[in-house]
Amino acid sequence: MSDEVKCDKSPCDKFTAINELARRRGFFWNSYEIYGGAGGFVAYGPLGTRLKQNIENKLRELFVKQTGILEMESSVITPGKVFEASGHVDHFKEPMVECVKCNRRFRADHLLEEYAKISCVQAEKMTLKEVQAALEENGVTCPDCGGGFRAPQQFLTMFTTTIGPYSGATGYGRPEAAQGIFVEFNRLYSAAREKLPFGVIQIGHALRNEISPRQGLIRLREFTICDLEFFFDPEEPSCHLLKEVETEVLPMLLCDKREKDCEDITNFTVREALDKGVIHSEWQAFFMAMAKRLLTEIGVPAEKQRFIEKLPWEKAHYSSQSFDQEVLLDRYGWTEVSGHAHRTNFDLGCHMKASGTDMIVFKEYPNPVETEQLTVKPVLAKLGPVFKKDAGKVGELLAKADPKTVEAALKKDGFFMVEGFKVLSEQVQIAPQKVVVRGRHFVPHVVEPSFGSDRLFYVALEYAYGIKEDRVVMSFPRSIAPVQVGVYPLMSKDGLAEKAQEIRKRLAEAGFMVEYDEAGSIGRRYARADEAGIQLGITVDYESLTQDTVTIRDRDSWQQVRSEIKALPELLYSYFQRKINFEDLGTLVKC
Amino acid sequence: MSDEVKCDKSPCDKFTAINELARRRGFFWNSYEIYGGAGGFVAYGPLGTRLKQNIENKLRELFVKQTGILEMESSVITPGKVFEASGHVDHFKEPMVECVKCNRRFRADHLLEEYAKISCVQAEKMTLKEVQAALEENGVTCPDCGGGFRAPQQFLTMFTTTIGPYSGATGYGRPEAAQGIFVEFNRLYSAAREKLPFGVIQIGHALRNEISPRQGLIRLREFTICDLEFFFDPEEPSCHLLKEVETEVLPMLLCDKREKDCEDITNFTVREALDKGVIHSEWQAFFMAMAKRLLTEIGVPAEKQRFIEKLPWEKAHYSSQSFDQEVLLDRYGWTEVSGHAHRTNFDLGCHMKASGTDMIVFKEYPNPVETEQLTVKPVLAKLGPVFKKDAGKVGELLAKADPKTVEAALKKDGFFMVEGFKVLSEQVQIAPQKVVVRGRHFVPHVVEPSFGSDRLFYVALEYAYGIKEDRVVMSFPRSIAPVQVGVYPLMSKDGLAEKAQEIRKRLAEAGFMVEYDEAGSIGRRYARADEAGIQLGITVDYESLTQDTVTIRDRDSWQQVRSEIKALPELLYSYFQRKINFEDLGTLVKC
Repeated sequence: MSDEVKCDKSPCDKFTAINELARRRGFFWNSYEIYGGAGGFVAYGPLGTRLKQNIENKLRELFVKQTGILEMESSVITPGKVFEASGHVDHFKEPMVECVKCNRRFRADHLLEEYAKISCVQAEKMTLKEVQAALEENGVTCPDCGGGFRAPQQFLTMFTTTIGPYSGATGYGRPEAAQGIFVEFNRLYSAAREKLPFGVIQIGHALRNEISPRQGLIRLREFTICDLEFFFDPEEPSCHLLKEVETEVLPMLLCDKREKDCEDITNFTVREALDKGVIHSEWQAFFMAMAKRLLTEIGVPAEKQRFIEKLPWEKAHYSSQSFDQEVLLDRYGWTEVSGHAHRTNFDLGCHMKASGTDMIVFKEYPNPVETEQLTVKPVLAKLGPVFKKDAGKVGELLAKADPKTVEAALKKDGFFMVEGFKVLSEQVQIAPQKVVVRGRHFVPHVVEPSFGSDRLFYVALEYAYGIKEDRVVMSFPRSIAPVQVGVYPLMSKDGLAEKAQEIRKRLAEAGFMVEYDEAGSIGRRYARADEAGIQLGITVDYESLTQDTVTIRDRDSWQQVRSEIKALPELLYSYFQRKINFEDLGTLVKC
Repeated sequence: MSDEVKCDKSPCDKFTAINELARRRGFFWNSYEIYGGAGGFVAYGPLGTRLKQNIENKLRELFVKQTGILEMESSVITPGKVFEASGHVDHFKEPMVECVKCNRRFRADHLLEEYAKISCVQAEKMTLKEVQAALEENGVTCPDCGGGFRAPQQFLTMFTTTIGPYSGATGYGRPEAAQGIFVEFNRLYSAAREKLPFGVIQIGHALRNEISPRQGLIRLREFTICDLEFFFDPEEPSCHLLKEVETEVLPMLLCDKREKDCEDITNFTVREALDKGVIHSEWQAFFMAMAKRLLTEIGVPAEKQRFIEKLPWEKAHYSSQSFDQEVLLDRYGWTEVSGHAHRTNFDLGCHMKASGTDMIVFKEYPNPVETEQLTVKPVLAKLGPVFKKDAGKVGELLAKADPKTVEAALKKDGFFMVEGFKVLSEQVQIAPQKVVVRGRHFVPHVVEPSFGSDRLFYVALEYAYGIKEDRVVMSFPRSIAPVQVGVYPLMSKDGLAEKAQEIRKRLAEAGFMVEYDEAGSIGRRYARADEAGIQLGITVDYESLTQDTVTIRDRDSWQQVRSEIKALPELLYSYFQRKINFEDLGTLVKC
């Protein structure tokens, strides 16, 4: 079952090293080990939980605080109707085969990739019959027992359950957070004070019932998704924030190259990509630039990132253009960390149709527009004598009727029937009339950047991982370090421990994430801290008792400065806000 | 279906007012309204998401940052074995009845409470037969159609699903986060560097498949739970942090009073409650005091809080003492917001037994203890001649045997049988021997404070709710206000809007939660901000352009001060850290 974090390639690749470190130091591990494990589920330990939250908060910082995107939270368990309307119940499936001998089940496309060198991209295009033929042609058999396979089936990869005590009320575990946003569009639009454009992000657990999960944090059955749905007027698609990212360089691998199996990356600034039509939507370009910044801020250099354009059959049929942001990983090569899709008005349209609820927005023109419209005008003087007491009613019905339909009927039949009343040409006038149009009705379009939190987490670990003098140092960027400050008494006697505890307490109260450690030699404690990625180490020594100063040690350079205790909260605040550098924290200590 | 937030009592109580405000301003609402709603699921809008996260971060601040509790994150979907071992599969059930006429299903205990005045506490003690008898005796019929009921059944209130492609692999939606901690005990203990005591908190979604959820945020099918499991040595139960909370006053309603249907509250300091034996465990008392602080910090005055001791049949059978923390709510009266249970070593014991995995910890004595232990010593000279080549094996078996069992057998039968070998008295010596014991093996005990995030959220809304000059003002404590600062240009012309946007941007980059608003009169914007609970309002006026100053307005007092723009980030940081008060932000403006 729990085969995800086993080493199946080189025993010394980064994936293996990181998984071993993660388990040992409590970043993450396979869940439920005492019950034999459960594939596709991980538990985040204390260091991992801090790191994962810091990454998610970095997303909030970039998108919610700085860009003004709204955040929402909805449920993981979702009524069946939602995923019927969105198309997931019909399409969220993977081809599965079952061994005739041992009855084990496998994802057919994964078998084709591994044993028949047919890429996932190609397999995605195949029908079940083609999958079966490909397995047979390539002689693919059960990897466990060598048996043949029964005919492939489609397997629904949503978790299914029942809501409440009635067996008919099917619920699904959401495979994405996006639908939770779309179904609440009207309330969210109202929270955005009925102004376009606006965006909503949701960060939360999501579920995909993978047939046979592998690859550790890269493919999980339960994971954290960050879906951002940005709603805009398709007739006013320009991005007012573009100037903030215009010069950002996006390394791109475009469809024309991909179709020729060429992996050459072309660098475009955001401005160039838009001007050359490489990216169609300004908002999509904006979010791609922001995604690059996010990855840079969690430690991935620009040259290890790229955006690949999705081929026609890789993207959803409604999507006009899609990109994946990829990061180069040691074992898995280029790996998707975010997707950037133009979802048009597809999702809102599906939910409008299925629910019968209007999600059309009205956008007022700056100035009302006067225009001529064909209107139906009942001639009351002629209606009265014919329809008597019903004349008023007939008049009302006519006023509401579609002018073109009335006109056509009169032309064709010489009369128009409305609720059983036969109306003649002379009883009605159809003529253009001046009307004032105050605005426009439409369904907003959507650009969606979507991040996988667990993958970002893994990426942060891999790019932080380094070896210095035979020791592992996890060099996380300062804003995501799981623990900001370690506090260490040089000795646990002579009042040093008490002094150190005081400092720990004061810094914790000031909001820093602090860890206290008095076990073992100071060198061993530094080594332990480096491995956990603790950014700074404050050591309380005998000078601390007389001079009220401490040393602060940098995790990456191992340099030390000496600083006044009373200045620590403000100094550290400025340091973690990136207003000052390590050298500004005090006077350099010569070691 | 979606009957939770309808008003079923007075149309003007706080519950109704808050639900209306929450829906209108986007704090929260019933999910999936466009599909007719789904009882027991809510969506948190932008303001609600901020508030809920602020409350959860307050928990982290108190417990993780200040107390040093570790945090972890595991999955909502959990393999069946976990909840079989914990007893949930057998016991996490509620009595349900079905109407013979309309087939609607109801929670029998809720019907008894509503229509037969039998309290939940009493109903909890009843067997299904007694429930049936009580329904009949009291003439309780279907509230919808008046039909009779079929015999009551037990309904499992966990969501059930299947993990992976095999139908046998049952999974449950976790009804609590605690088991996710217990099953990972060994790894967490290792992350805590194998030292007791230590605590682990998990904040995450949890699921209870309620038969008929009501009461809005008070009873949900999907909710956020904050379970904190604190592990300690039962032989060293003292709390080293007690001095920090000793003088905290706990308002308590104890069992002796409750048994007499008396609701009198007695106030004890933590110290008194422990000294008088009112609370048995120091750690439990510590966490109760912390829970009181938490509620106080989210806006509930001490006199609206109490701790009730659970009656013997209300608490889990393994728990030696349990308390509920309750808050007085306008509609629902005293309502549980946290539970404080002494879970002993029950859960770890269950998982050890079911999984066969050892979760026993070893605690080294400061100094090894020399002690005498009865030991079995084979007399090899006598064994040799009798058992020949088996003599060695018999010797080994004897050395491993329990001395008391061997002694008793020899005394009773004159021999001891071990794997078919008959051992006589002369072949073995049973005598006390000096041994050095280096420490003690035991299963840690657990004290658990457990909070419901959604209830804390509702409580925060209700206690923030106030009316000032006919307007709603949401007076959240400053540390949980969903938006910290509103930025308003007095007019949107003459460069005021640009200046205001600059300030918004600078404050957002400094990490504040800021909202920009330029729509409508300044008075209307203030009113809108008060209703959203925005703590401070910064107004950019014509003086801002010439003097580089702004006014800052306090949400609650409506007072204004004038401050320098360049000082804002530092001033606001100090203000939100509670280092300075509103008056310290600038020079008071006379209105």
